[in-house]
Amino acid sequence: MEIKVLHQVMDWNEDVSEEVKKTLSAHHICMINVMGSPGAGKTSLITSLIGRLKDDWRIGVIEGDIAGQVDAERIAALGIPAVQLNTDGACHIEAMSIQRILPGLPLDDLDVIFVENIGNLVCPAEFRIGEALRITILSIPEGDDKVEKYPLMFTDTDCLVLSKYDMMPYFDFDESRVRANYGTVNPGAPLLRISSRTGDGIQELSDFIAEHIRKTQL
Amino acid sequence: MEIKVLHQVMDWNEDVSEEVKKTLSAHHICMINVMGSPGAGKTSLITSLIGRLKDDWRIGVIEGDIAGQVDAERIAALGIPAVQLNTDGACHIEAMSIQRILPGLPLDDLDVIFVENIGNLVCPAEFRIGEALRITILSIPEGDDKVEKYPLMFTDTDCLVLSKYDMMPYFDFDESRVRANYGTVNPGAPLLRISSRTGDGIQELSDFIAEHIRKTQL
Repeated sequence: MEIKVLHQVMDWNEDVSEEVKKTLSAHHICMINVMGSPGAGKTSLITSLIGRLKDDWRIGVIEGDIAGQVDAERIAALGIPAVQLNTDGACHIEAMSIQRILPGLPLDDLDVIFVENIGNLVCPAEFRIGEALRITILSIPEGDDKVEKYPLMFTDTDCLVLSKYDMMPYFDFDESRVRANYGTVNPGAPLLRISSRTGDGIQELSDFIAEHIRKTQL
Repeated sequence: MEIKVLHQVMDWNEDVSEEVKKTLSAHHICMINVMGSPGAGKTSLITSLIGRLKDDWRIGVIEGDIAGQVDAERIAALGIPAVQLNTDGACHIEAMSIQRILPGLPLDDLDVIFVENIGNLVCPAEFRIGEALRITILSIPEGDDKVEKYPLMFTDTDCLVLSKYDMMPYFDFDESRVRANYGTVNPGAPLLRISSRTGDGIQELSDFIAEHIRKTQL
């Protein structure tokens, strides 16, 4: 019974996701869905990227959280339009929520919107939200077995970012295992390494994203 | 629409959870639901506890994962009866799955069953599975804002374990923030610190659990 219902919700979600995509496309906005476990470093990644991208592009952020608004406050402190989306218990963001939020953002004055999804390696991957680009973050402390255990999150993404890479010396993390498994489920997709603390890798990731923003501008 | 359906599923889940509880109670088995983010150290915690508890108690393990069986293999290698439960995409374990699995375990020869839930700080907290005890793990690398962001997981648990505590020097983790927030949502509930790597804190956690197993034996 549950599976049938999920299917209905997901069909509906797909429809709304396409509508959101059209709205964003009409405004030449590149929306980026940032996904990963709790504490993988999603907010830090977004704030680091803002630092690199804000001189060239107009940025907005939608911060998804079950509860609270600490992340939106962190972003707003950077002078970036930020909306906090509280899912009140739901473990992922759905396209319907984005559709409802978009009119509250200055769409004519934005080139890119980062959406920080709920910290969760499972459900967010199942729900398209009208994004042009999906980024999955896996932090070094989480371990090297996550691609095998949570395959959809790594299959259905445009880029895998290994975060907290400066922590490599302190954890038994076999990067070749991750690369092999990721290469199997998502052949040819890029893998980048970053440390938001040291700044390593942020420029490469920023270049990768700028390329996608440029495409949306055409 | 979605909320109504979720409610139906959850009512049903509650009923089955009570049935599972009765079955376990009849066999004097203490079932422990171990929850936490992907990579928080759930399997390591369980294997460390097995080392301390196995001379006194007969242990079984149910390993929940979306896919794969690496965790059940780790447990079985210790000579412990282990069942791998693959949820095939679902982000949490439901009581119905436990009910279906129990007859496959040697219930007359077990005192305690550890259930490793899906790595997820959201959904598992919503689904009782017939457990006598809930343990929530939060690893230091995940950050000190998780109680605010994922409140239910910390409200509806019997014990919070701060894992990878040996990593404290490398992360900006404000333990007092976690203690304050946890104390607010779950007053009086215990908080323990462990490092599965160094073994620190495992004895205390093991004592805490043994106390609960003893209660189930009465």
